[in-house]
Parts: sequence; structure tokens; C-alpha cells
Amino acid sequence: MKLDSIGDWHRTHYSVDVKPEMDGEEVTLFGWVQEIRDLGGIRFIILQDREGTIQVTVPRKKVSSEVLSKSDVLQKRYSIGVKGVVKKTEITPRKVEVIPKEIKIFSTATQCLPMDITGKTPAHIDVRLDARALDLCQEENIAVFKIQHTATEAIRDFLFEKSFIEVHTPRIIASATEGGAALFSVKYFGKKAFLAQSPQLYKEELVMSFEKVFEVGPFFRAEESHTRRHLSEFVSIDIEQAFATAEDVMQLLEQLMQYVCKIVNEKCQRELPTLKHSIEVPEVPFKRLRYDDVLQDLKRERIEIPWGEDIPTPAFRTLGKIHPYFYFITDWPTHSKAFYIKPRDDNPELCESFDLMWRRIELASGGTRIATKKLLIKRLKEKGLKPESFKHHLQAFDYGMPPHAGWAIGLERLTMMLTGKKNIREVTLYPRDRFRLTP
Amino acid sequence: MKLDSIGDWHRTHYSVDVKPEMDGEEVTLFGWVQEIRDLGGIRFIILQDREGTIQVTVPRKKVSSEVLSKSDVLQKRYSIGVKGVVKKTEITPRKVEVIPKEIKIFSTATQCLPMDITGKTPAHIDVRLDARALDLCQEENIAVFKIQHTATEAIRDFLFEKSFIEVHTPRIIASATEGGAALFSVKYFGKKAFLAQSPQLYKEELVMSFEKVFEVGPFFRAEESHTRRHLSEFVSIDIEQAFATAEDVMQLLEQLMQYVCKIVNEKCQRELPTLKHSIEVPEVPFKRLRYDDVLQDLKRERIEIPWGEDIPTPAFRTLGKIHPYFYFITDWPTHSKAFYIKPRDDNPELCESFDLMWRRIELASGGTRIATKKLLIKRLKEKGLKPESFKHHLQAFDYGMPPHAGWAIGLERLTMMLTGKKNIREVTLYPRDRFRLTP
Repeated sequence: MKLDSIGDWHRTHYSVDVKPEMDGEEVTLFGWVQEIRDLGGIRFIILQDREGTIQVTVPRKKVSSEVLSKSDVLQKRYSIGVKGVVKKTEITPRKVEVIPKEIKIFSTATQCLPMDITGKTPAHIDVRLDARALDLCQEENIAVFKIQHTATEAIRDFLFEKSFIEVHTPRIIASATEGGAALFSVKYFGKKAFLAQSPQLYKEELVMSFEKVFEVGPFFRAEESHTRRHLSEFVSIDIEQAFATAEDVMQLLEQLMQYVCKIVNEKCQRELPTLKHSIEVPEVPFKRLRYDDVLQDLKRERIEIPWGEDIPTPAFRTLGKIHPYFYFITDWPTHSKAFYIKPRDDNPELCESFDLMWRRIELASGGTRIATKKLLIKRLKEKGLKPESFKHHLQAFDYGMPPHAGWAIGLERLTMMLTGKKNIREVTLYPRDRFRLTP
Repeated sequence: MKLDSIGDWHRTHYSVDVKPEMDGEEVTLFGWVQEIRDLGGIRFIILQDREGTIQVTVPRKKVSSEVLSKSDVLQKRYSIGVKGVVKKTEITPRKVEVIPKEIKIFSTATQCLPMDITGKTPAHIDVRLDARALDLCQEENIAVFKIQHTATEAIRDFLFEKSFIEVHTPRIIASATEGGAALFSVKYFGKKAFLAQSPQLYKEELVMSFEKVFEVGPFFRAEESHTRRHLSEFVSIDIEQAFATAEDVMQLLEQLMQYVCKIVNEKCQRELPTLKHSIEVPEVPFKRLRYDDVLQDLKRERIEIPWGEDIPTPAFRTLGKIHPYFYFITDWPTHSKAFYIKPRDDNPELCESFDLMWRRIELASGGTRIATKKLLIKRLKEKGLKPESFKHHLQAFDYGMPPHAGWAIGLERLTMMLTGKKNIREVTLYPRDRFRLTP
């Protein structure tokens, strides 16, 4: 089939912007054929674009032969352009239709699509990920990523307003893991390098100059665990602030969460209903539970966790039921957290770290950092890490490292909270083969 | 030395916000000791923070013994807090000083700093990169990254306003290079994976659903070349737009460049003079030269380049002299560009691609993409690439791939243009060992 080129056509409206009041106006629409219904004398073409759908009505007798022959060959997912006249009508839900004067066919599509993207007959997640490019055309999925987009935009606006500077730290690092999760190794011009699991050390070094920094970007964790909430590659939203304590950045974080919920509610009034999801704007301050309180809460539910141990997933599930919204968990055992977290002055067994929970999901974690070289070296050793491999980082502590604190939010988990999606694969753009790679 | 903790102190002002009009007001300042001058009866401490400096004056007889003893031990780069009273004065350039009531010392610093960060005695770039955390405390360097921050913020605002959706595509890819530059390989749970060199294939797949997408983030190129303009890891600003041609996205790009220059000029009125740099807001449209015109221009300068060959760096230097501002180079030979660039319908020898040049520097490149599977497979083969390894990408073309176009800007090069920096290492946050890694 001979395909048309765009030529001098420019879109005048998205589908949803075509209103009955525009009766008689000429519009140019671009999009894809979602459905075709043929009633002999009349043909209905549902045109889909990013913003929604609109009915293009082809009354056989009333349109040009060119329009008719074009409309004859249309199939689902053909990408097309329609120049036509808006008509007020009673027969469509949106009370409007477009009568085409000219149709352009830009590209065709296979006759056997792997799934129905109207969402009427839902496909299995694996089928969807196998044809992710098509799967993402579902109104529901577009809504998910519009909400994620809106959330990240809101986060930036909030942090800009607080005079944070956005930075881009290296992903390929020469050495030095921050401990904990394993690193992916990269062959870097014959030498062995690694993929950064966080901007932690860099952002700490940067508070000496920029004072308030943040970064949004992909980081990497070679953890074998492959659950519905973990990814080996994830987008992290990191901040670090000089002359601040854990309490300062916790207040910043809860205000940010409140702001994000507020903005997404305001800006995504079409997307949230599409997902049959609603967001409650939280009150601040959020509930603050100490690690010890959490153990007590769980004990009451007959879940015994020996002091100092991490809280296992099933316990978090219970905890999420007891505290069904946002809450902080503070005062974790020092040994259970990373080497750079500051122990409490009054009780070094506990540290100035926090996790921000939303029900059972850990959305963010952070804390006050150690600002003195001596203590940092002590903690490195206690963690079984070699101070030598942190030579470059430790050097920065000779140049006047200020007291500082920070946190990191997992963007995918935040998106799950904002969209109501339960499977993290639905809020990423990875194709299925990417997940096949994971164990 | 016993260090102080922040306690309940909160910064009331940055150094630059302390004005003579505030005479008598009490302020709380945080920052670092930049210089100390002792005139016996009186001591001058220059306090530096992210925004600038201010003089803290200690008249021995008039301050408490605590303040005196604290100020006695101060050294360069100690991070401190000062609670004091603003005093109007004639003796300082900014006509203001602060008399301390209380001083807190948060951290000390080494007595032998590797460089003078006042910039009075400039250090060699390698020395600077070896102590990057300290180097970045130079007012000049803070200015560079504030300008980069302002530029990226402006780019986002511009693209949001044009309804682009920000996305996060995978960095670890299972297979399939887009050809051209080599890829870094990653050991991914026993399997071999690669680091993405661009979001090209993903962003093209996404125009079928989101229509207008953009991404800002790090990408990776395992090119042996290590020049003053190349990085093996770089930040790319990518857009892709459905139902658009090269000309459409070129117009978008030149408007964006004009907007960025305008905003940076407006918002960085302290930073640009610090760098002794100025930005001229360009007129649009930018000059458009065809590849053939460029060969002619160069021929006149006695630089002969056989048709179809790439333009070597020295030739670009000459070209930058002939065209000393922004210009596009269009209509490149098809075989010289990537497989996904659309050949011209009227002359398949040439393709609908463009580079955006600023003097000798290539700031961005883009073009109309191939939207039909058949032609894409043909081009893959011509490029010596295996269609099988693009199976997943080609599949998307069965679902109604619309005509589309896009471009990518190199953030580091844009920053060089906006800051006047000539060495790309000065606009990145990589420590020197990162560059030692490169050949």
C-alpha cells in the first residue's frame, strides 16, 4: 500500500480538545485507528491519540471517493491523519464526531496484534511486556507514566524552590563500593570498573561546595532478589544538604510528599480516574515510630523480632496494616545501617537514620551522615570495609566536611503509590527480555 | 579539638543576603573560613558559603572570651556557624560586616590544602581534579554548575510547556547495539549485557504511545578517543516526537537554544561575570548549511574533503571561524549517518539529518527517523548490522509506527558553550582517577 507523508499537515487539536461547541470548525487530527465499526452505509472509526479518542464518522454517500477508498483499507493501529469538520451529535458519548474531508495513512500495522489495547480483554503481564511498545498505548499505561512525569516535575519544582542544585554524578566508578548491595562490574578499557549503586559518596562530597544538591537518575544494584518491589536498575531521587540533621531532611521529605500528592491530584484529574485510583493528601508531620516501637507493634501481633535484626517482608505487611498510610521508622540499630550514617551522640547503639514507609512499602530512606574522618574510618572497619578503597572519599573530609544529612526516594515505588499499581514491572519501561535477564 | 553540633541553629541568611540596611540585626550564618587576617587587636575572618563571602570581624576587646578562644583556633576551610550582629561599615567592599556573639566549629581541615581556592593562584587541572571536592568550592566552579543547573531547568520548562513527557529508559540493555560507537559490556547475573549509548531505540518505540517524549540522563560510549570534547560517559538530553519531521524538531531546537540563552542570561547575572563570560541571545531561525555547502566553504579555505567523507576536527575549527555562532548542517550523506535516519525521498543519497553546531562544537544532532520496517531492515543490512539482533525493536514497527523525528543535545558541550569553559573535564563532576581510567 502506498503510504502518505505528513507534508505540510500540522495537528490542530488532540482528540479530547475537540468539543461540540466547535461544530462546523475544520480540524487536523493525528493518531491511530483503535476500532472500526461498519454499518454498511456508514463507517465509524475510533481515532486514538495520547490524550484519548474521538469518533471519525464516514457517511459513504457524503464523502469523496478518495476518503472512502482510504477508509476502506484502514485496520487497527494504522497511524493516520484526518482533516475534517467537527459535528455536534447525540450518538457519541462525547457528543461530537468528525466528518473527514481528507485522510492520510502514514503507516500500517500487523493484522494479528498480540493484545487488545482497549483494555476490554486484559492481557497477561508477560504478554504485555513482550509487546511493551503496543502495551503502552493502553490509556491506563499512558496514565501511569503521565503521573510519574507529573510527580518528578513536582519534586523538582519543590527542590528548586528550596534552592537545591541538580547535579549529574558518575555512574561508572573506578572502585570503592559503599558496601551492602553488590555492584555490577564493567569492562572499562581493559580495566575493571563498577556501576554506581547510588550517588551517596559524591553527593556528600558536593555539600562542601554546593551545600544543597539533588540528583534524579538510574542506579544499579546487583542483588539476586527479584521481587515485585525490587529492580536491579532503578531511578533514585537523591538529596544531600549541608548544615542539616536527619530531622531537618525528614521535615523536607514529608512536606515534599504532601506537595507531590497535592500536585498529582490537581494535575492528573483525567489520569487518576482512568486508573480507578485516588490519592489522599497527607497531613504533616507524619507519624514517627522508633525501631523499638515497631518491634513492640509487631510483638502485639505475635511477630517476634530479636532486637537489632532487620524487619522481614511479612512483618512489613503486618506493619502496613497497623499503620495504613505514611510513617517514619527512626532510630535504627547502628550496625544495621550503612557506614556513613551517624550514630546518636547519646546512644551509639542507635543511629540517626530513618525510613519513610507508605503502608508496607519503603518509599525512601536517609539520615544524618558522619562528618568526621576518624569516626567514618572506625565505622568502615566495623563494616568490614577497607578504608584504603575509600581514599578519595576520605580525602574530602580534610577540606572541611560540614554536618550534613540527606535521603533517597525510589521513583518506581513512589509511582506504585501514586498509581495504585502492585507490580513494579508495570511502572518501568523495561521490555520483558530485560526481566528475563534477572534471575 | 572538641567540635560543636548544630543543635537548634538554623541559617537565617546566605553571606550575600547580608546588607548594610540590616545594621543591628542578628543573623546566623553557616559556611567555611576562606581567609583569616590578624591585626593584633582585631581579627578578620572571611566566611564563605555557596552564594559568596562576608567579613566576620572580631574586635578582641569587645567579644566574649568564648568567641575569642574559638576564633583563635580557626583555620582555612574549617566549617563554622556564626551568630552575630550586622554592622554597617566603610572598610569592606560590600559595606557590611558581622560582629560575632557566638561561634560554632563544626569541622576542621588539613593545614596543607592542595590548592588556593580563592583562585588568586590558579592550580593545574590535574591537581584540581585530584582534589575535586575542594576545587569545586571555588566561586568560579560553583558558577559553572549553577549555570548548568539553570540551563537544564530551562530546557525542562520549555519541553513541559510543549507537552513532552519525561521518561526513564533502561541503561542496561540485553543486546542490540545501534551501531557506530562501541558499547561497554556488563556482567549481568552471569549473562553478558551492555550499557546503553543512547535512548534512541526506546524513545522511538515510545512515540507510538506517548507521542512526545524526552529524557535527560547519563549514557555511555566506549570510544577510545579521549579529547577535550569527548567523554565515555556523558549526559544526553534526548527528545523524540511523533508526526513530526526534521524541520519541525530543528525549529523546536533553535527556539530551545534561544530560550536557554535568554534564561541563563536573566538568572545567572552573578555567575556569568564570575566566569568573565557573556552569552548573546541568538536570533532564530539559525543559519542552515547543507553538507555540500560546507564542503564548498572549506574548499574556499583550501580544505579539500571528498564528498561523502566525514568532516575532520581541524576542518570544523575552520568552519567555526567562518560561521562564528549557531548553525545547522543538514542533508548529510545517508551512508555517513546511523541506520535509523530517513533518506530523502527525492534523493536517497542524502538523508534528513542535521547537526546543530556552535562555532566548532557539535552541540546536538538529530533527524527524521525511518518509520517503515522494510526500509529499516534494508538500512540495517547496508550498515552491516543483523536485523535479528533488532528483533524487539523491529517488532514495534508492526504496531503502527508513526512518522517521527528527534534530536539529542550533549549537556557537557552545552555547558561549555554557556560557561566559556574549553576543557570538558571542568564541566563534569568526575574525579581525576575517572579520567586516568580512560586511555
